[in-house]
Amino acid sequence: MASFRLGMIGCGTVGSGVLEILHRRRDALKRLLGRGIEVARIAVRDPDRPRHQVYGFVDPDVFTGNVARVIEDDSIELLVEVAGGVDAPRDWMVEALRRGKDVVTANKATLAFHGEEIFQVARECGRSVYYEASVAAAIPIIEMLQNGLVANQVTRVLAILNGTCNYILTRMELDGVDYGVALRQAQEKGFAEADPTLDVSGEDAAHKLALLARIFTHSYVPVDRIFTEGIQRISREDMAFAEDLRYRIKLLAIAKLSEEGAWDLRVHPAMIARDSILAQVQEEYNAAYVKGDAAGPMLIYGNGAGSFPTASSVVADIVRAVKGDRPVNGEEPQESVQLVPIENVSLRNYIRTIVLDVPGVLGRITSHFGMRGISIASIRQPEAKVGQPVPVVLVTHKAPDKVVTDSLCELERVGLLLEPPTRIRIEE
Amino acid sequence: MASFRLGMIGCGTVGSGVLEILHRRRDALKRLLGRGIEVARIAVRDPDRPRHQVYGFVDPDVFTGNVARVIEDDSIELLVEVAGGVDAPRDWMVEALRRGKDVVTANKATLAFHGEEIFQVARECGRSVYYEASVAAAIPIIEMLQNGLVANQVTRVLAILNGTCNYILTRMELDGVDYGVALRQAQEKGFAEADPTLDVSGEDAAHKLALLARIFTHSYVPVDRIFTEGIQRISREDMAFAEDLRYRIKLLAIAKLSEEGAWDLRVHPAMIARDSILAQVQEEYNAAYVKGDAAGPMLIYGNGAGSFPTASSVVADIVRAVKGDRPVNGEEPQESVQLVPIENVSLRNYIRTIVLDVPGVLGRITSHFGMRGISIASIRQPEAKVGQPVPVVLVTHKAPDKVVTDSLCELERVGLLLEPPTRIRIEE
Repeated sequence: MASFRLGMIGCGTVGSGVLEILHRRRDALKRLLGRGIEVARIAVRDPDRPRHQVYGFVDPDVFTGNVARVIEDDSIELLVEVAGGVDAPRDWMVEALRRGKDVVTANKATLAFHGEEIFQVARECGRSVYYEASVAAAIPIIEMLQNGLVANQVTRVLAILNGTCNYILTRMELDGVDYGVALRQAQEKGFAEADPTLDVSGEDAAHKLALLARIFTHSYVPVDRIFTEGIQRISREDMAFAEDLRYRIKLLAIAKLSEEGAWDLRVHPAMIARDSILAQVQEEYNAAYVKGDAAGPMLIYGNGAGSFPTASSVVADIVRAVKGDRPVNGEEPQESVQLVPIENVSLRNYIRTIVLDVPGVLGRITSHFGMRGISIASIRQPEAKVGQPVPVVLVTHKAPDKVVTDSLCELERVGLLLEPPTRIRIEE
Repeated sequence: MASFRLGMIGCGTVGSGVLEILHRRRDALKRLLGRGIEVARIAVRDPDRPRHQVYGFVDPDVFTGNVARVIEDDSIELLVEVAGGVDAPRDWMVEALRRGKDVVTANKATLAFHGEEIFQVARECGRSVYYEASVAAAIPIIEMLQNGLVANQVTRVLAILNGTCNYILTRMELDGVDYGVALRQAQEKGFAEADPTLDVSGEDAAHKLALLARIFTHSYVPVDRIFTEGIQRISREDMAFAEDLRYRIKLLAIAKLSEEGAWDLRVHPAMIARDSILAQVQEEYNAAYVKGDAAGPMLIYGNGAGSFPTASSVVADIVRAVKGDRPVNGEEPQESVQLVPIENVSLRNYIRTIVLDVPGVLGRITSHFGMRGISIASIRQPEAKVGQPVPVVLVTHKAPDKVVTDSLCELERVGLLLEPPTRIRIEE
């Protein structure tokens, strides 16, 4: 049987990994598939730049500066898009689908913003878009939601989908360092970009949650409908208090199905029980806890970034495309989804602030919350010299998110606080 | 499009769950697949026994006492075997495959003993055997190995595949009870059979490891080539010492690829680091830690038994069969595999025994091991009244398994021990 011809756009970290794996596993994959896989064409910005690290894996002649030579070549059955960017990849994918090619991509941003159109074109053309590598790199979370849990109504997802944030939070916790120091460590280790905004703001995790939510909500969820808060304001003090309270702080992507059938979708730092299995996911690793009505609770854990871990999933998708396995779950025309606004979500909260140690200050703060219907589960106030500022930590019972937000706003205006309060939501 | 017709053999715990899920998710599955799924015939031992619990999900007329009415009905495209047993299911599966049907099964014992023949017939007939539910129930470990990690050389698997043993060990640890008490608790909770031998002996885990090993070794591994040891001799004292040493005891199914390309496959109780993520898998849950050369370390966790968790995977397999997704990895003609015999595996060991507290006894024991090339990493001997028997715990450095086994045998003959030693292998 003739080789399966694919074309690639991009040949950076992920692309090089794909070429190396396809080379290394060539015989094994050929034996499994009954045919070889040939990388027929690779479009890159500068085709003349020497790429010695991949010349052992692919003929130097396959490089081109012209994406049309990949997309318009009808002998190429599959477009593998590993270039990055947001809008240009949309154009390439749409055009490739229209020309009868399947698409494999690791590009979460493009799918989060242009997914509706891309999946629609794929449906019209009877082609498939495979995107396992776009969420949590090596972890086959897309496959698990599309296939393994297809018999389930997913009712809950709690996921650590951003390795940069998880690495920073782990360093803050284990080394007792500030956010800024941990961020620099992450940058030195290659776990954070020079401009880390996309990661630390929670946006990247929100893109990924939007992609997962397509599958288990059977609905298109615009990224801007997902409440998103980053980790930039978490401090060393919060880490210490979290440990004291038997919690650990993680940036979580959360999806919960309400009894009324609406979805609560959000991304924010959360305190979770220190002895929960999700809390054991440390360093740069990713994981997803998923609960299905039949399967019960599941957890899947692994590398959420890196050349080979990402390429591992890209190649798994290439194999699916060669075999002709068509994803169905998450690819069908989408229903409309009902969302629970963050304002109505009822959670416990950790609140830390600094107050002047004057008589009655704690009483005034607790009665401030009490009058707004927020009851306090516990208070910690370390002893301090009289008249010196002291940190105060409150844990609330469950209260609607907006009530807590508004109460904190008002409390700031009262003038009792020496520092704006930090609030971290608690997930049980 | 006409409904997809399947026939089922067996309608016990798993079968009822399958019928309920197919009913509950009927509309969702039909929307995804573009056609309905019809349970056209169910063969059971006693078709006349009332089955009110499933009459809401399926027409009572589909029940038959004659398996031939499932297997020989050419309008039925798929056999779902959830009856249990070992030899009879082999005959049903082979006959169904020869008649052009695909097969979905939850039956690990039949596949462990007759898998070679069944997969061979499937290949000859161009049909597929789907068996996700046969290992770790709800956890899509087969799919992960067949698809998600297809680009990888798997180099290591450490898995908790028997929920009965994991529940018993958890109870012993958390409640401080003896093996016998924990076993009875497991039986009362429905986590252990009246005759628990298959589970507590490690045999069931070995069957499952044999099935997984087919996929990642690309080889047929006879169950009797897998070294297997059960949990029956683990005591409350071992649990306490394990905690003291910062370990936890788990029944592990282990596969390791040696640098020479041979596979070390075994099932036995093992001490693992208490703070490792695998050690957090408690109660009746299952999990598999898998390391691939590209993906790196992965963990997947979930329910390893139960009606709905198992049925969740059976229905996922039914969906695959309806879609026509053909597994390739693990289904190809098998290569021969080179195994590392347990005798040559080099591990650290925990050794507990009871000695008479006479002067020089510890010295004689350590020199006994020293003379055989086993060096001792640590010794614990709680203080006892002079002349009274005292427990002694040794942790060895790495030593070949056979050397340790023989040394323990010889030590027993020396007459220093008041109780045969307990030895638990340590996995780092």
